[in-house]
Amino acid sequence: MAGWWGRLLRVDLTRGRVVVESLDEGLVRRLLGGRGLATYILWREVPAGADPLGPENRLVFAPGVLTGVPAPGCGRNGVAALSPLTGRLGSAEAGGFWGAELKRAGFDALVVEGRSPAPVYLWIHDGVAEIRDARHLWGLETGEVEARLREELGPRIRVCQCGPAGEKLVRFACVVNDLTHFAGRTGLGAVMGSKKLRAIAVRGETPVPVADEAGFRRLVREMSAAWKEKAWGLHEHGTAGSTAALSAQGGLPTRNFRQGSFEGVEKIDGRTMTATLLAGRESCFACPIRCKRVVRAASPYRIDPRYGGPEYESVAALGSCCGVDDLAAICKANEICAAQGLDTISTGVTVAFAMECVERGVLSSWHGKGLPRFGDAEGMVELVRQIAAREGIGDLLAEGTLRAARFFGQGSEAWAVQVKGQEVPMHEPRLKHALGLGYAVSPTGADHCHNLHDTAWIKEGSAVKEAGVFGLQGPVSLHDLGPDKVRLFCYITNWRHFQDSAVVCYFVPWTYGQLTELVRSVTGWNTSLFELEKVGERVATLARLFNMRQGWTREEDVLHPRFFEPFAGGPLDGVSVPREGLEGALRLYYGMMGWDPDTGIPTPARLAELGLS
Amino acid sequence: MAGWWGRLLRVDLTRGRVVVESLDEGLVRRLLGGRGLATYILWREVPAGADPLGPENRLVFAPGVLTGVPAPGCGRNGVAALSPLTGRLGSAEAGGFWGAELKRAGFDALVVEGRSPAPVYLWIHDGVAEIRDARHLWGLETGEVEARLREELGPRIRVCQCGPAGEKLVRFACVVNDLTHFAGRTGLGAVMGSKKLRAIAVRGETPVPVADEAGFRRLVREMSAAWKEKAWGLHEHGTAGSTAALSAQGGLPTRNFRQGSFEGVEKIDGRTMTATLLAGRESCFACPIRCKRVVRAASPYRIDPRYGGPEYESVAALGSCCGVDDLAAICKANEICAAQGLDTISTGVTVAFAMECVERGVLSSWHGKGLPRFGDAEGMVELVRQIAAREGIGDLLAEGTLRAARFFGQGSEAWAVQVKGQEVPMHEPRLKHALGLGYAVSPTGADHCHNLHDTAWIKEGSAVKEAGVFGLQGPVSLHDLGPDKVRLFCYITNWRHFQDSAVVCYFVPWTYGQLTELVRSVTGWNTSLFELEKVGERVATLARLFNMRQGWTREEDVLHPRFFEPFAGGPLDGVSVPREGLEGALRLYYGMMGWDPDTGIPTPARLAELGLS
Repeated sequence: MAGWWGRLLRVDLTRGRVVVESLDEGLVRRLLGGRGLATYILWREVPAGADPLGPENRLVFAPGVLTGVPAPGCGRNGVAALSPLTGRLGSAEAGGFWGAELKRAGFDALVVEGRSPAPVYLWIHDGVAEIRDARHLWGLETGEVEARLREELGPRIRVCQCGPAGEKLVRFACVVNDLTHFAGRTGLGAVMGSKKLRAIAVRGETPVPVADEAGFRRLVREMSAAWKEKAWGLHEHGTAGSTAALSAQGGLPTRNFRQGSFEGVEKIDGRTMTATLLAGRESCFACPIRCKRVVRAASPYRIDPRYGGPEYESVAALGSCCGVDDLAAICKANEICAAQGLDTISTGVTVAFAMECVERGVLSSWHGKGLPRFGDAEGMVELVRQIAAREGIGDLLAEGTLRAARFFGQGSEAWAVQVKGQEVPMHEPRLKHALGLGYAVSPTGADHCHNLHDTAWIKEGSAVKEAGVFGLQGPVSLHDLGPDKVRLFCYITNWRHFQDSAVVCYFVPWTYGQLTELVRSVTGWNTSLFELEKVGERVATLARLFNMRQGWTREEDVLHPRFFEPFAGGPLDGVSVPREGLEGALRLYYGMMGWDPDTGIPTPARLAELGLS
Repeated sequence: MAGWWGRLLRVDLTRGRVVVESLDEGLVRRLLGGRGLATYILWREVPAGADPLGPENRLVFAPGVLTGVPAPGCGRNGVAALSPLTGRLGSAEAGGFWGAELKRAGFDALVVEGRSPAPVYLWIHDGVAEIRDARHLWGLETGEVEARLREELGPRIRVCQCGPAGEKLVRFACVVNDLTHFAGRTGLGAVMGSKKLRAIAVRGETPVPVADEAGFRRLVREMSAAWKEKAWGLHEHGTAGSTAALSAQGGLPTRNFRQGSFEGVEKIDGRTMTATLLAGRESCFACPIRCKRVVRAASPYRIDPRYGGPEYESVAALGSCCGVDDLAAICKANEICAAQGLDTISTGVTVAFAMECVERGVLSSWHGKGLPRFGDAEGMVELVRQIAAREGIGDLLAEGTLRAARFFGQGSEAWAVQVKGQEVPMHEPRLKHALGLGYAVSPTGADHCHNLHDTAWIKEGSAVKEAGVFGLQGPVSLHDLGPDKVRLFCYITNWRHFQDSAVVCYFVPWTYGQLTELVRSVTGWNTSLFELEKVGERVATLARLFNMRQGWTREEDVLHPRFFEPFAGGPLDGVSVPREGLEGALRLYYGMMGWDPDTGIPTPARLAELGLS
């Protein structure tokens, strides 16, 4: 086939050795790359009980079969490892240009193993790779590291790195592509830091081959014609453009998930950003939508535009979730996260957790400087800085809400809003019940990516028609947890796992059919939506197998208790996630996945079907 | 949507009443018509323990969403009822023109219930239906009935009927479309006869609507260009054109399945038919392939060309399976089956059963006239006639091999080669092991239609590429019963159930992708291969639910013991179906279908997924 070279780069940092291995086409077709291939590699190579921050963990950088072809949404790559935050599968994707560049440099996957005795970076260019000294980069902010590497290697390189927070093993440190794109969740930056691998600079000149050029060009033309109608809002106001609308629905996490509406929302909505701080719009590789923000300010906070601007998740986590309505402060905290390499979601929720601790008197006498209360914008920014630097209380909070709560005690686990140790993102299960099912069962803990945002599905019209490819006959309601809803959840979640393997953006409005044709045209395979759904199912099941070996039990697949508490007031007054309904939905989901409904363990027949026996 | 009117015609023969009901589009999309819709109707309306030949049975004639659109393969309709042969789901499809005409007359389904006090026929034309006296037709051969009805109603009507064998309740009587096309299996002609419904004449003038005319025409053009390369053999020599090749492989049922090769095969192969008796080639509605044979002879047998000519199944069942190498005798017996309304497969295997009884001395003194031995062509023809007429021993044999064997005793069940009471068709599980799995688990007993003929799958190249749409990576071997083979079986069998619901011919070489697009273009639905596979899975599961209510147990899902006996000599010398391998494959199949691997009963989660809770 034409779509990939089948080359895997393996870097052993302990021995300082680089080898190129070949990937079998059949294996790539079963897993596609991204999360699929990475999880397979982790399953093969990371032993039970491995220390996530030890040398036997693997850190996998995995583009997918779609990464690097010049089509909208195809600039992404996956990153995966055993997570230091959850002790389970760590997996996240980042956009930008770095993943495409890695493919153009001739590699379909990069596996990092061992641990370097001293800081290093990788320099990968046109099929070769070198391990280089990075002592001069250690401790520098991400922008500085990228600037230095460009001086060393040339202006057109692309850089992926872990940031100072990764160096300091903050358990929710992220991996940063091109300064402004993040494989945010599950602490992959800490794994990178633990290996003393500060950065990976890449440069490649070889276009990624496409098997059916004519078919491929047709699809790109279709998207060029369609995106303005379907995704103009994303271009205009970014992902934060619906923050106020979500608040009006009652689904905006506010003050550590105790409310679903935020009285200050208009001040932090993406539209306000457009009207005030916005300095530009940026894109990922080959994408016309340009949903990425660039913000700039001189005072009261000096905000460096090199670090882009906040996504919806960051606005809500650092904003409403902390009760903060100061957009400049949010943008500053977002900049700190980018410069230091922190996941904005876990950071914001951890700050909110600390704020609730203060409110409840748990942390009042903890720290001389005083800790922020809900709504304290300046205090929020300062605490983000302390977490990144592991200063004072920040050192404890850098362990994540669950570990911090276990240290603080006094019942604080009740407001450490996480699943499997990972902080809950900015989507409210009391608005979208199936999302709560997703938080409970996701292999990576509370994760909004491979999950059901079913606002798109409850409407009549085109969304219902689009769901027809799965044989679903809509609409279904946001609070439904019945068989049709679980089926929708199951199919869409598996589709997301496919997308995270291929790897392709969720935001580019490809239809299911177009995306199937895109894979076909790029790879030359006679594929179908059926095969791609089965890939997603295989990846989800493989992730379960990996987690089982790391100690997963059925009891972990639960939603945080906060979501069983009814809202008091607001648009969702009195609404909570129904415990029994969720339990029934979870059993149905297990069954539909071919997992035992009691234990959640995959059945032998399903493993055989997926080729995982 | 444009693809169907959503009109179901219900005829109560007890009350002499005709009503038109409407079909919900959502229901049609979940089941498509054909076997899917018919099984649903039976499941809703036929109570546990109903007498298959009593008035409470339903006889459903079901075109599908593709029936009647002017594309190759779209001339077929399903027929279904509780089977008098198996006591389980009775379901078969017929080609020709009648099903398309029923759609053109404005109906998507016809449900016949009750029992008429005297013989009747139905006259359906342009949206209306009448029950008419058929006493003048009772007892006449099918050709005579069609001629009389054309005199009464006009030359352009299409006739479906049960034949004299159906009138006499031969348990494997078939339903005849246009004299030369048969819903052959499971005794549906006997159900029609039991209701005293001799024929259904149809005439319609309204073209079946197509939602996307341009897309539809493109697909038809593609097939017009492709079929000569892919299906020329079918045109040239019919389905019997590979008889000799199958014998050379060792997979031609010979002398009641005791051998797999037939020394006289060259004399009965389709190529010989082409060179000797062939008088013409006929087609089904809108099909250019014209795989249907017309044979003619004056002596030693006068063979009436109105009844077409034998398919492969008929050549083998009435030929090699009886040790008969006289093609003219086979064609004569085939003509009798068509004129009388007998399933050629069950007829041939029943004759072969009788021959083995004679050989083993079980029937030597039974009948004054003497019974045929293997190889006795004239005796075979005569016994076929006696079965149709229920004369002498024919009256017993008309009950099918299983009931006859139970009557004869003396261990004769050991060579009554059937599953669930239905005689095994002309495909040899010792050549194709997964086919044996199919015989065991099929809801209709031994059935070759919704089953895996995996000769097409073991080769490299295009067939393997085509299977890629299911994520299968070939090749797999004929004797494989491992996970990949069971997965292939599962997916293909479900696809066949889809095809039998849509309803569309297996022989027209549509790719999976083209067929998906065909459904999309005709219906206007945003469908996919995923949805259509799920329809097939739903239909197979619904059939299981229906059978469970009629008394099905796990013990029924077995292959006849003959196939566990190794062949002695021939290309497959020493080969038998491995018992343990088959048992393991069956458990895997159950599991992959979401059925309990021990009991074969669908799990609650799978029922929920398929909307069958």
